[in-house]
Amino acid sequence: MEKEVIKFESEFSIDCVIFGFEAGELKVLLIERKDNPYKEWLALPGNLVMNDEGIEEAAVRILHELTGLNNLHMEQFHTFGAVNRHPRGRIITVAYYALIRIDSQKELRPGKLASKALWHSVTDLPKLAFDHTEIFKTGFHKLRRRLSYQPIAYELLPEKFTLTQLQQLYEAILNKKLDKRNFRKKMLSYGFLKELDEKQKNVSFRAAKLYKFDRRKYSKIFQNEIGVDM
Amino acid sequence: MEKEVIKFESEFSIDCVIFGFEAGELKVLLIERKDNPYKEWLALPGNLVMNDEGIEEAAVRILHELTGLNNLHMEQFHTFGAVNRHPRGRIITVAYYALIRIDSQKELRPGKLASKALWHSVTDLPKLAFDHTEIFKTGFHKLRRRLSYQPIAYELLPEKFTLTQLQQLYEAILNKKLDKRNFRKKMLSYGFLKELDEKQKNVSFRAAKLYKFDRRKYSKIFQNEIGVDM
Repeated sequence: MEKEVIKFESEFSIDCVIFGFEAGELKVLLIERKDNPYKEWLALPGNLVMNDEGIEEAAVRILHELTGLNNLHMEQFHTFGAVNRHPRGRIITVAYYALIRIDSQKELRPGKLASKALWHSVTDLPKLAFDHTEIFKTGFHKLRRRLSYQPIAYELLPEKFTLTQLQQLYEAILNKKLDKRNFRKKMLSYGFLKELDEKQKNVSFRAAKLYKFDRRKYSKIFQNEIGVDM
Repeated sequence: MEKEVIKFESEFSIDCVIFGFEAGELKVLLIERKDNPYKEWLALPGNLVMNDEGIEEAAVRILHELTGLNNLHMEQFHTFGAVNRHPRGRIITVAYYALIRIDSQKELRPGKLASKALWHSVTDLPKLAFDHTEIFKTGFHKLRRRLSYQPIAYELLPEKFTLTQLQQLYEAILNKKLDKRNFRKKMLSYGFLKELDEKQKNVSFRAAKLYKFDRRKYSKIFQNEIGVDM
């Protein structure tokens, strides 16, 4: 008992905010938990760190165990340490985030703790387990800030994309409508978009031109953190 | 014993990287520890979080206990969780940083753990205790990045300052010489510097004009995170 108390008094966990972009929508990866007191609640993929693993390793392991996802570049963004944030006792959690192209990923495989793993639109999230709503909001805020000074768009878009898809991505992250003409003028002015000799395939409506990022130029724009201002 | 092991297996601490600017030099706040195994080593101010306090409170308490400093705006920047980072066992540490005008602070008061608290130039730091050299470097890197998209200069400079002081601050943070003419042209072009009708006092050499930040304008520049590129 005494032992338990001490054990529960200080532990640390990892929680992952994984953003994906699909069909013009920004989504976040969630699991449905099997364990009480949060049975059947939606939560961010997260679990305790083991005593013999570093927190970076732990983040990779935990995400893989709960969702089947692998080889993501996970970046730490904040640690949450309110005294009563977790019903099991004093557990602080280190939050990581990552961005992926949903279509580039194999199917999700929920693990031990989870009955489901799913992509959920960021626009109509229900209340999440624990303080995961706050963790998600903090991660979403960081993502928004980084859009202006880090080349994150190509992590979320397919290799070849239309300007409409690019605008949808910016609108989803900034959570506001952007003027089509201004957006295109601005984006093309940076010189990091390469127009291809291809158009969309299998679309009912008029097929749009496809573009690619010139990664060298795209990264250069952000090197000295000049923002791409929307 | 078993109890001890568990207790030592997971704990968390706070470490503070406090930057100050004085006489044209960027400095970091260090303490000299009293306790083994790091007796007389220089270290960042840091200590364990108590089970009944949130990590934000803990950061404020620990900095105050070890250095006497109060009312700093501390910002969390990274959590370090390598398995063997601490000789006492598995302790992850949440690192905070803050910026202050050294001249605006009352004298430093080292607390319990420390025999000294002092400002040390960032340019010739000795090896610090634990992994504090790595923590310092990470904090310094963040500071550098933030210089381009957050209005941090006025937290470090006196209310009234010369353009030379402003350039010295940028040079200290970016760790490179900047061309005087270009620097002044650029800084004045942003419109957030207010020229005063005053000059420096008690200087042997020719007294230079004093400037103030127009905070409203200064913050506006950074609102949408357009960088101030050097």
